[in-house]
Amino acid sequence: MHVVVNAAMSADGKLSSRRREQIAISGDEDFARVDQLRADSDAIVVGVGTVLADDPHLTVKDESLIAERREAGEADHPARVVVDSKARTPIDAAILDDAATTYVCVSEVAPIDNRMDLAGRAELVTAGDDRVDLLRAFATLQQQGLERIMVEGGGELIFSLFEAGLVDELRVFVGPKVIGGRDAPTLADGEGFAAEFPTLELTNLERLGDGALLTWRTAGG
Amino acid sequence: MHVVVNAAMSADGKLSSRRREQIAISGDEDFARVDQLRADSDAIVVGVGTVLADDPHLTVKDESLIAERREAGEADHPARVVVDSKARTPIDAAILDDAATTYVCVSEVAPIDNRMDLAGRAELVTAGDDRVDLLRAFATLQQQGLERIMVEGGGELIFSLFEAGLVDELRVFVGPKVIGGRDAPTLADGEGFAAEFPTLELTNLERLGDGALLTWRTAGG
Repeated sequence: MHVVVNAAMSADGKLSSRRREQIAISGDEDFARVDQLRADSDAIVVGVGTVLADDPHLTVKDESLIAERREAGEADHPARVVVDSKARTPIDAAILDDAATTYVCVSEVAPIDNRMDLAGRAELVTAGDDRVDLLRAFATLQQQGLERIMVEGGGELIFSLFEAGLVDELRVFVGPKVIGGRDAPTLADGEGFAAEFPTLELTNLERLGDGALLTWRTAGG
Repeated sequence: MHVVVNAAMSADGKLSSRRREQIAISGDEDFARVDQLRADSDAIVVGVGTVLADDPHLTVKDESLIAERREAGEADHPARVVVDSKARTPIDAAILDDAATTYVCVSEVAPIDNRMDLAGRAELVTAGDDRVDLLRAFATLQQQGLERIMVEGGGELIFSLFEAGLVDELRVFVGPKVIGGRDAPTLADGEGFAAEFPTLELTNLERLGDGALLTWRTAGG
């Protein structure tokens, strides 16, 4: 399994404003790059916070990329995965439509009613007592044949993945805006590291549209 | 007056950990760059939070850069400026030693005793009622002949400077670490923008040591 975390952040490291509203950080060049990365993936993973805030569809947009997937014998779109400890994904979420297979990873504390509602629309993966055990959940995804994993946020999930040692690559588009705010979501939130910070290696650096694309590899990634 | 904000942040946009401990984000190449930028400046500005957390000296380190300043008829070191609404700078702070002139910018709410203690060791600039009025304070600095201003943080001051429209350039070294933490200090904290985000233009992008140096110009900067 190879896990790529992909995100767009402002010049000051924010994914959105303190109001959690989606802000256009990247432009057409970055959208095309993200679409290509999606098309090259077996699954796209997001946290439930991202589903609740943005209601993303997470499908491949470019018809020629979809055609390439078809020719390769793949489904039109990669699978979609929500990490959702309490099964809060709304049953009318765009991610639950029939465009692609969707997995919802829940923990044992998720209310049974929510799980039953979701079970008709998604594959449920139960792992962990009060929070999703990411190692176990990702192992289950791998057993389903999902090897090329792309993570699209948000900052809570990204931190948890670094904490679990599951990240192989981090691709960050840094856009030409300042968002600011001590309460605004950042690329890696959660509790944060206090020591033994994950160390990265910069494998690529390029200008992309109005911003910069930084590609990092984790030690062992 | 030309204001350059310079900072080193982790790959996820943090200046330090949630414990506010200083973390080595940059390496020798970036230290040399920062020292050169200091030597090319008339004043180095920090917020009082940075003084309290790190007790920086903010002097030029390289003897040859100091010699160049002398030859140019300048003081050995640029002036140092603390933005300190309540006059909390400790009287034994390194920034108050006699290596260079120091300005402490306070507001009217700063206790008189604190101000009197500081007045013997620094030039006091009083501007603003309950917070330092940055426009007025910087105008006073300019009247003192300080034209080339370098700001070294922290995130609260940097946000306030963007809010006041005082930033001409933002130079960010992005280092090869993940710090994480929703409470960790970021490059621009404060309340944050909710709309009309400051827009930047990427004027330079280069690899520097183990990280990336991004140089941004603000609209009108």
